[in-house]
Amino acid sequence: MHIELITTGDELVSGQIVDTNSPWLMDRLFAAGELVRRKLAIGDEFEDIVSALREAASRADLVIVSGGLGPTLDDMTVDAACKAFGHEPVVDEAQLARIAAIFTRIDRPLTPNNERQARVPAGAEVLGNDFGTATAFVLHERERQCELFFLPGVPRELKGLCEKHLFPRLKARAAAAGVHRCYRAVKCYGIPESHMDQAVRPLLERHPHVRYGTRTSFPENHVKLLAEGATPQEAQARCEALEVEVRKALGRAVYGGAEDTFAGATLQALRGRGWRVCFAESLTAGLAASLLADAPGASDVLLGSSVTYATGLKERWLGVPHELIEREGAVSEACARAMAEGALVASGADVAVSLTGYAGPEGGEEGRPAGTVFAAVAGGGLPTKVVERRMPFDRNQVRRGAAYMALELLRRRALGLERE
Amino acid sequence: MHIELITTGDELVSGQIVDTNSPWLMDRLFAAGELVRRKLAIGDEFEDIVSALREAASRADLVIVSGGLGPTLDDMTVDAACKAFGHEPVVDEAQLARIAAIFTRIDRPLTPNNERQARVPAGAEVLGNDFGTATAFVLHERERQCELFFLPGVPRELKGLCEKHLFPRLKARAAAAGVHRCYRAVKCYGIPESHMDQAVRPLLERHPHVRYGTRTSFPENHVKLLAEGATPQEAQARCEALEVEVRKALGRAVYGGAEDTFAGATLQALRGRGWRVCFAESLTAGLAASLLADAPGASDVLLGSSVTYATGLKERWLGVPHELIEREGAVSEACARAMAEGALVASGADVAVSLTGYAGPEGGEEGRPAGTVFAAVAGGGLPTKVVERRMPFDRNQVRRGAAYMALELLRRRALGLERE
Repeated sequence: MHIELITTGDELVSGQIVDTNSPWLMDRLFAAGELVRRKLAIGDEFEDIVSALREAASRADLVIVSGGLGPTLDDMTVDAACKAFGHEPVVDEAQLARIAAIFTRIDRPLTPNNERQARVPAGAEVLGNDFGTATAFVLHERERQCELFFLPGVPRELKGLCEKHLFPRLKARAAAAGVHRCYRAVKCYGIPESHMDQAVRPLLERHPHVRYGTRTSFPENHVKLLAEGATPQEAQARCEALEVEVRKALGRAVYGGAEDTFAGATLQALRGRGWRVCFAESLTAGLAASLLADAPGASDVLLGSSVTYATGLKERWLGVPHELIEREGAVSEACARAMAEGALVASGADVAVSLTGYAGPEGGEEGRPAGTVFAAVAGGGLPTKVVERRMPFDRNQVRRGAAYMALELLRRRALGLERE
Repeated sequence: MHIELITTGDELVSGQIVDTNSPWLMDRLFAAGELVRRKLAIGDEFEDIVSALREAASRADLVIVSGGLGPTLDDMTVDAACKAFGHEPVVDEAQLARIAAIFTRIDRPLTPNNERQARVPAGAEVLGNDFGTATAFVLHERERQCELFFLPGVPRELKGLCEKHLFPRLKARAAAAGVHRCYRAVKCYGIPESHMDQAVRPLLERHPHVRYGTRTSFPENHVKLLAEGATPQEAQARCEALEVEVRKALGRAVYGGAEDTFAGATLQALRGRGWRVCFAESLTAGLAASLLADAPGASDVLLGSSVTYATGLKERWLGVPHELIEREGAVSEACARAMAEGALVASGADVAVSLTGYAGPEGGEEGRPAGTVFAAVAGGGLPTKVVERRMPFDRNQVRRGAAYMALELLRRRALGLERE
């Protein structure tokens, strides 16, 4: 299917916001077996919107339009759609009642502006909106053999409406055409994208019914697999057959699947052992504990973190001997070890992990340049283990990369996957 | 000037990455007095690229194309540009030597793939690249009265090449036309975008030569001002005249200008008093200290943070009395106060700030629902101050919002700006 996206709004062409809707939508469309051919962002210029709609409709089978359905005068998508395809704007009474009910519920008066949000092109299929006031709708332009979905740009509303209306239709349509799909992701940490790609590509030849893609979210890399089959079972079997091979080829770099997060996988591994964890962080200044706390429900596992940016606090809070820091330096294997072991004792946790290093851009020393990170894990019934890494990244990437190192040490220790 | 952006690459239409180049470029173009009219993202489809180039060149004065200048076969921008405008691809010997020198420097062999990166359309103005291997170039399509900049998609290279070649030309061209520009940003925290907009709009009428824009980066909101004048001095005077009024209208919400960051402004305020700071974090789990450490050079101000997710650690590390937590709860004004005062004592810092609350989505209690945050600041020669906020946001926004609350308490105390 030829799919195009059009996003409208001055904020999208003046650098006001980063568009996160489109990557989300494209990612979900991939999982539905569809690739986006063109993605256009335009400002709130009436004639630009009209011509963009016409051009897209002349090329595409499906056009997804987001934005411009709000209450103000610079929200002009309904009128642009009417002009582009020769419809009249009409007020949909059911939608007007829906919007009025929302305003009654939040105890605010309905203004004429808000009534604008009940307008749709005559003849449009009205989708409504369970997630906000703007009225979503579909135009079936049969002459042009094109369907156009008009959705609000507010991320929560756009996503809710896609889940409710767009994706089920794509799925039903494919099923009606005898095509069933199965999507799997294999999420990795600790392997560069190019290596991941090299490991996976040779496997693809024997799996002609599975499409392959990747996704990068520093420092993670994900493999995306989409299989097609004549039945749901066939699609699933095809997808899983390749998934097994991909997981085997990528080995210990794999931490989970589509529904997993790295923090969640770490939390789950710790919970599986009944371990409570404490962090001792220097260069990350709290980012590692905070990363684990990104996962809802972290409070039964995460006790806390002792952030000791200052050398004095490493001594006072973690019991790192003054002489050790004098002798070895605060960025050293010995200091990382003493920090992890100190955090274990100070917190009463079952397992503790420490980070010390130079985030850059300044700092570093002979043999330990900016980007040098030491991480240690202590407890869990095993000897303390220290790893050293050099990261040729910028300051905030070094800190994020270091936070991942800490969680990975915890995850491997909890799962019994430590490298010798 | 009519400007269009074209970004190419399958990763941009399959949800592999979030495009941060375009917002950056559009933001910088705004500062240069230019708005982008259309922004198109397309996959690595040769004919799609050719037609997109032709269409854009027929409409625009300036087209900025990014991506597709890499060494592999799916990098086809040079050939697409040749086909679109009737040029032959040629190898630029100077660029080949430049690329060979890079490979010599990193001690790797030059492959035929890399030689591809020295190809440009015949007649193109070659820009080269000080930041990577890909060769940037400009096509001057005089028939179409359009100039096309071809730049690599790697953010560091794109940004470097824009700073070196694109922005200076735009500036010189405007100056040659007798137009000089001055850009200022007024960065705010603690004011909703709609309120900021309402406060600024009435001021604009008396400043017809200044263009106004906004930018949102949760939980910050920024005002962007761009003045034009016949001389640099006139542009600057016009911009500053409005800037003064905007800063006055937005009052205490303003923390800085274009070059400032919120963490940097907080750091600077603390440094101005010679204060060293310690955090005591519960719901943010280290995010607040980490936010301050985002600013390079934080280590002379930030001592550390005591992240006490577990109640037991609030008692052990911060000396919060067990009975207090029993009586008032861990999410309470009294607990926030005790945490901040405890951190001050435990760390020996000059000032300390604490955070406790319910990030959600679960949790909360009668009268203190998910999204409730207490923050306290202690030390600095003033009585401890506690503030309470309800944030109707999702889990990670509540945590980010809370981290900002903590830094704001520090900044105001250091600057003597505390509200009564």
